[in-house]
Amino acid sequence: MSEQGVTPQSVDFSAWYNDIVVKADLVDNPERTPVRGCMIIKPYGYELWEAIRQGLDKRFKATGHQNAYFPLFIPMSFLQREAEHVEGFAPELAVVTHGGGKELEEPYVVRPTSETIIGDAMSRWIQSYRDLPLLLNQWANVVRWEKRTRPFLRTSEFLWQEGHTAHATYEDAQAETLRMLDIYAEFAIHEAAIPVIKGQKSEQEKFAGALASYTIEAMMGDGRALQAGTSHNLGQNFAKAFNIQYVDESNKLQYCWTTSWGVSTRMIGAIIMAHGDDKGLRLPPRLAPIQVVIVPIYRNDDEKSRVMPVVERLAAELQDAGLRLHVDRRENLSPGFKYNDWEMRGVPVRLEVGPRDVDNNKAALARRDILGKEGKQFVDQAGIVDTVRQLLEDIQASLLRQATEFRDGRLHEVVGDYDRFIDIIRGGEWALTWFSGDAEGEAKIKADAQAVSRCFPLEQPYAGESGPCIVTGQMTDRMAYFAKAY
Amino acid sequence: MSEQGVTPQSVDFSAWYNDIVVKADLVDNPERTPVRGCMIIKPYGYELWEAIRQGLDKRFKATGHQNAYFPLFIPMSFLQREAEHVEGFAPELAVVTHGGGKELEEPYVVRPTSETIIGDAMSRWIQSYRDLPLLLNQWANVVRWEKRTRPFLRTSEFLWQEGHTAHATYEDAQAETLRMLDIYAEFAIHEAAIPVIKGQKSEQEKFAGALASYTIEAMMGDGRALQAGTSHNLGQNFAKAFNIQYVDESNKLQYCWTTSWGVSTRMIGAIIMAHGDDKGLRLPPRLAPIQVVIVPIYRNDDEKSRVMPVVERLAAELQDAGLRLHVDRRENLSPGFKYNDWEMRGVPVRLEVGPRDVDNNKAALARRDILGKEGKQFVDQAGIVDTVRQLLEDIQASLLRQATEFRDGRLHEVVGDYDRFIDIIRGGEWALTWFSGDAEGEAKIKADAQAVSRCFPLEQPYAGESGPCIVTGQMTDRMAYFAKAY
Repeated sequence: MSEQGVTPQSVDFSAWYNDIVVKADLVDNPERTPVRGCMIIKPYGYELWEAIRQGLDKRFKATGHQNAYFPLFIPMSFLQREAEHVEGFAPELAVVTHGGGKELEEPYVVRPTSETIIGDAMSRWIQSYRDLPLLLNQWANVVRWEKRTRPFLRTSEFLWQEGHTAHATYEDAQAETLRMLDIYAEFAIHEAAIPVIKGQKSEQEKFAGALASYTIEAMMGDGRALQAGTSHNLGQNFAKAFNIQYVDESNKLQYCWTTSWGVSTRMIGAIIMAHGDDKGLRLPPRLAPIQVVIVPIYRNDDEKSRVMPVVERLAAELQDAGLRLHVDRRENLSPGFKYNDWEMRGVPVRLEVGPRDVDNNKAALARRDILGKEGKQFVDQAGIVDTVRQLLEDIQASLLRQATEFRDGRLHEVVGDYDRFIDIIRGGEWALTWFSGDAEGEAKIKADAQAVSRCFPLEQPYAGESGPCIVTGQMTDRMAYFAKAY
Repeated sequence: MSEQGVTPQSVDFSAWYNDIVVKADLVDNPERTPVRGCMIIKPYGYELWEAIRQGLDKRFKATGHQNAYFPLFIPMSFLQREAEHVEGFAPELAVVTHGGGKELEEPYVVRPTSETIIGDAMSRWIQSYRDLPLLLNQWANVVRWEKRTRPFLRTSEFLWQEGHTAHATYEDAQAETLRMLDIYAEFAIHEAAIPVIKGQKSEQEKFAGALASYTIEAMMGDGRALQAGTSHNLGQNFAKAFNIQYVDESNKLQYCWTTSWGVSTRMIGAIIMAHGDDKGLRLPPRLAPIQVVIVPIYRNDDEKSRVMPVVERLAAELQDAGLRLHVDRRENLSPGFKYNDWEMRGVPVRLEVGPRDVDNNKAALARRDILGKEGKQFVDQAGIVDTVRQLLEDIQASLLRQATEFRDGRLHEVVGDYDRFIDIIRGGEWALTWFSGDAEGEAKIKADAQAVSRCFPLEQPYAGESGPCIVTGQMTDRMAYFAKAY
C-alpha cells in the first residue's frame, strides 16, 4: 500500500479501484453503507457527476430534447406487457407491496428503466404525425437489485439519464439512435478523454425489448472493456405493447418507432479506470471538480505573511476567469503530504507558491499527467490565467492521447486462429475478429474465455468484405470486438 | 369555461388550478396518470423546476454547501430510532419488501426525507471539531403516501432538495437554520416574485423530530396560505439517535447539533397560485421557461415572406442576448388563438411582428401582467434587446408588487375578538393575533375555523410587548398568523 493507503494498480487493479473510490472521497466506504448495494456519493464524486450531467444535458437540449419527469413506481403489469423486457428485468426488481399502511392491490416495482411508463404516457401524448418526433429525456435514479456490487460500476441504485423518443418511421428512429450514440461518443472523447469505440451489440447482448442496441465501449487501465453508454432502437416493440400510435398524413393509424438511450454514474467508474495510475485518480480537466489546487509553501509566520497575499491574488485571478480552484489552507500538513493528497484525488494542475517564488514573481506549476520534475515548470505570475488554461488543455489532450495509445496497443485483429483469439482475451486484451453473431458460438467463447462480444464496431476495417466467423467458420460480413468486461 | 377550457379563477379557484396545470402542459392529466398520486411532470413544468433548482443550487453553493447523494432506501429500523420522527412519517411510508426475487430480511422504506440515513453517514464522517460545520445538500425524489393528491401541492412522489448540516453548537445550528430560511425567502421574493412571510411554526406544526421549525408562508390567489419552504433546527435529537459526535477543542466528546431544510416541487404550485389569473398562468420572468414568445402576423405568402426575415432577425438578437425565446411558427392558427394560448401558458412578453411593423421598423410588445391595449406598446426594432430586458424587469417587479398588495389587503390584526378572528379566517383571509402556542387552543381554532397557525412571524409588530392570547386569554409575547392553508 502507498502512503495514502491505496493499493498500487500494478499490484491489484481491482483492489486499487476499491481503495481509490473511498480514499479520494468519491463514495462512502461500501462496507459501512447501511443499504445493501446502494452507494452514498460524497461531494467530490457528486461534483464529477454534476459535470457529466451538465455536459450531456447541454448536448441533449442543443439537439431538441426536453427533460421531463415520470413516476419512480411502475405497475408490475406494465412491465409484463413487453415479454422480453420483463424477462430481462424480473430478476433485478425491487417491489413495493405496502403503501400508507396498507397492502397494495397491485404491487409497484421501483423503476429499473422507464420504457414502459413513458411508453404509456406517449400513447396519450401522441395523436398525429405533427406530434412527432417526441424527444424526451429524464434525469433520475433507478434500481436494479444486484448480487455483487461495486461503487459506480454495478450498484443496486444508480443515477442516470434515460432518453425516450418516438418517431414516424424506422429510419427516423434509427437516425436518432445513432445521433445519440454519436453524442455519447463525442462527450466521452472530448470531455472525459476516453477514446470509446462505437458499435452494435450482438443479439445476445442487446437490451431486453430492443430491435438493436448500440454502445460506446471504453478500455480500462487493466485492459477490460466497460460499456459506458447505450442507445437502443426499440422498433415497434414498445409502441405495440403500449399502443403508441399516430395518424399519418394520409389519415391512416400507424404505430410509432421508439428509441431509448442512457448514460449513468458508471461513467464515473470509466473515468477512474481509464486514467488512474498508481498514485490515484487522474481527472480530465474539463470534468474535474477542482482543476487547480494551490499549495502555499512556508516554514514560519514571516514566510506565510509574504506567501499568502500572492496565493490569494492568484486564486482570485484564476477563479474570476471561471477556473475551478481550491486553495489548500490546511495547517500542520507538509507540502509533500499535500502534493500526494491532491495527486491521489486527481487534480490536473497543482500551483505552488513559496517565498522564493514571491521574490521572483514566479509560481511553480505541476501537472498530474506527468509526475516529478519533468511535469513541473516555473512560470511568471503575470499571465497566470492563460498559462494555466493552456496547461489544462494540454493535459486534457495528453490524457486522451495516452488512453488512445494504451488502447491501440491492446487491440488485436485475429482471423481464423481460435486459440490465439481466446489467448488474447484471456490475457486481458481485445480481439477484433469475424463473427457471425451466432448465439451458440458466443456461448462457446464465453465458456472458453469468460468473455462475450463487446460490439460490432460501426467503423468496420474491411467494410464490404467477408471472412470466416472465428467460432462457426461460416462466412460473415462483420467483425466484432471481444474482451473481458466490467 | 374559457375558450381554452380553463375554469375562471373567479368561478372556482380549485377547478381553475386543476385545469391550468393540465392545459398549460405542466403535468400530465392526473386522472390518466397510471401510478396513484404520482405526477408526470411535462417538459414545460420541468423547465420551471430546472429554473428553481438552478436558482437555489447557486445560492447553496455560494454559502458553502456541497451536494451529495444518499440511498433511496432506508432500513425501517433507522426511522424508528427517533421516536417523534417515525411517528410523524409512519402513516405515509412506501415499503419495499422484496428485492431480486426474494423477501428482504428487513424491509426498506422509500425515503420520505433523509435525516436518518444522512445522520448515520454523518456519524461516520465527523470525528473532530475540525470537520464542522458539515454542510450538505441533496437533490432527490421522495415518497410520502398521500390519500388526496393534487399536482405539485401534495403528491405521493415529489422532487425536492434537502439540506442537512451538522454543527458544534446550538448557536451555530440556529444561525444556519435562519440563514437558509433567509435564502429561501430571498429566492421566493426576488426570483418567484412571491412576498413570503418568514416565521416559526408552533409546537404542534413543527417537523417530526425538530427542536424548532421555520417556514416561508405564501399567500395564494384565493387567500389561502401555502408553506413554500421549511428550515428546521433539529437540536441534538438526530445526533443522539445516530451518534453524531465530535471531539471538541478540549478533547471532549460532544454531540453535534444538526439542521435540515427543504424546498420542493410545491414551489411550482405556489408560483401558479400566487400569480395566475382567469386567463391562466403568469410566470415571473426570472423563472419563466419562455420569457418572450414571438408571434408572426401575416395573411398570405407575400406578407409572410416580408415578416419572417424580421422575426428571425429579432429572434436571433434576443436569443444571442441570453433571453429564453420561442417563435410560434404554427400554421393554420390565428394570431388571436396564439395570443390566448401563450397568455394561458403565462409567457411574460409577447412580441408581434406584422407587415406594417416591417414597413415601420417597429414591433408590438404585449405584457402578460397588463392585458389588452394598456399593456401593449409599439417599439423600435433597433435596441429590441434592451427594450425587452427592461420590460421583463418591469414585469418581474410588477408581479411582486401586485402579489404584495393583494397580500397586504388580506392581512388583519385582531386583538381579543375571537369571533372576528374566526370570521376572518373562514372568510379566506389571514389573521395576525396574540397566540400562546397552546395545543388545546390551537385544536379549538382548528375545530372552529378549519385552520391552524401558519407561523409566528420573525418580524413581530409589537416586539417586546405582550397581549392576551386570542383563545386562552393568557398574556403572551408573540403574535401568530392563522389562515386556511394548502
